[in-house]
Amino acid sequence: MPVSTASTRVPQQERSRATQARLLEATVDCLVEHGWSGTTTTVVAARAGVSRGAQLHHYPTKAALVTAAVAHLAERRADELRTEAEALPAGPQRLDRVIDLLGVAFTGPLFVAALELWVAARTDRELRDALVPLEATVGREMHRLTVALLGVDERRPGVREAVQATLDLLRGLGVANLLNDDSARRTALLTTWKRQLATLLTP
Amino acid sequence: MPVSTASTRVPQQERSRATQARLLEATVDCLVEHGWSGTTTTVVAARAGVSRGAQLHHYPTKAALVTAAVAHLAERRADELRTEAEALPAGPQRLDRVIDLLGVAFTGPLFVAALELWVAARTDRELRDALVPLEATVGREMHRLTVALLGVDERRPGVREAVQATLDLLRGLGVANLLNDDSARRTALLTTWKRQLATLLTP
Repeated sequence: MPVSTASTRVPQQERSRATQARLLEATVDCLVEHGWSGTTTTVVAARAGVSRGAQLHHYPTKAALVTAAVAHLAERRADELRTEAEALPAGPQRLDRVIDLLGVAFTGPLFVAALELWVAARTDRELRDALVPLEATVGREMHRLTVALLGVDERRPGVREAVQATLDLLRGLGVANLLNDDSARRTALLTTWKRQLATLLTP
Repeated sequence: MPVSTASTRVPQQERSRATQARLLEATVDCLVEHGWSGTTTTVVAARAGVSRGAQLHHYPTKAALVTAAVAHLAERRADELRTEAEALPAGPQRLDRVIDLLGVAFTGPLFVAALELWVAARTDRELRDALVPLEATVGREMHRLTVALLGVDERRPGVREAVQATLDLLRGLGVANLLNDDSARRTALLTTWKRQLATLLTP
């Protein structure tokens, strides 16, 4: 009965995807709220409303779960950034608005959840092995996305370094915002940085 | 017997200071090696070769111990940086060498230990309450020290912002170095940054 099999398989796949998405969103929420040590697979399953069995089926270990969660959220954030950037004006104002969007991203839940994992992975070999390849991919994607959002040509001398410095600066500002609302200082600092960056990126 | 009292009190104070120093150094080593969750007061006492009683006398809680440890190491690192900077040449090379020294500091044990605490404090109220005032002091001291090492005048427009951006960039580079040796990329990026900074700081 190939037709009936196909029609039951699709809803099944959809249910699986929905279950996975619920687990991954719950994982990031948990990392943001309770940190790495407070994030257990049991707490995540309960929060997602998913049975332990279903959770273990999709993500057999905590390392697999949290790594998939950060990959999932990184993709979703990249899509959101692309959509938000489509609404941005061309011209000189564009750079300022792109930096504003990135400033928000580097102080948001994905950054906080990812930082929890980076720090925990330093002293947790299983997590580290799972995270290092992902970190490299997410880092490259973030760089590519920034180049695309800024609409600059990376083959020009200095552009690659300027984009890298921007992302490293934003990472540092994200850490500075962990325990305090650092937004006033960050806004002032990024206002200066936007002017420098405009000079660095102008042919 | 005032003379005898004074002569026994001084060695006693010295012993206390030595015990405290051993506990604080062991705490930082422990944070670097095992992270926040693997750092227990019992492990630290054993590592320092100090009795639990003596440890509890000096630092009654884990929050008190780790905060004192970071404060202690921050002071020691600042002293070391000042000493190292005394050996630096005056003139244009000085800026490059100061950035090199800071690059080392922001990837060293103090940075790693402090980052463990910042991240843990985000979801641990007791640690957060202990750490927030210290973080503000250490941040201000680091800024002042950088201004002094660079030998720049902060009353000039743009200098304060340039020093802040340098420290935020170094913090971001420190995080990028957590799971991988990022030194090649960091050196290249800081070479570019030094040139930019020289321009920003030149009257």
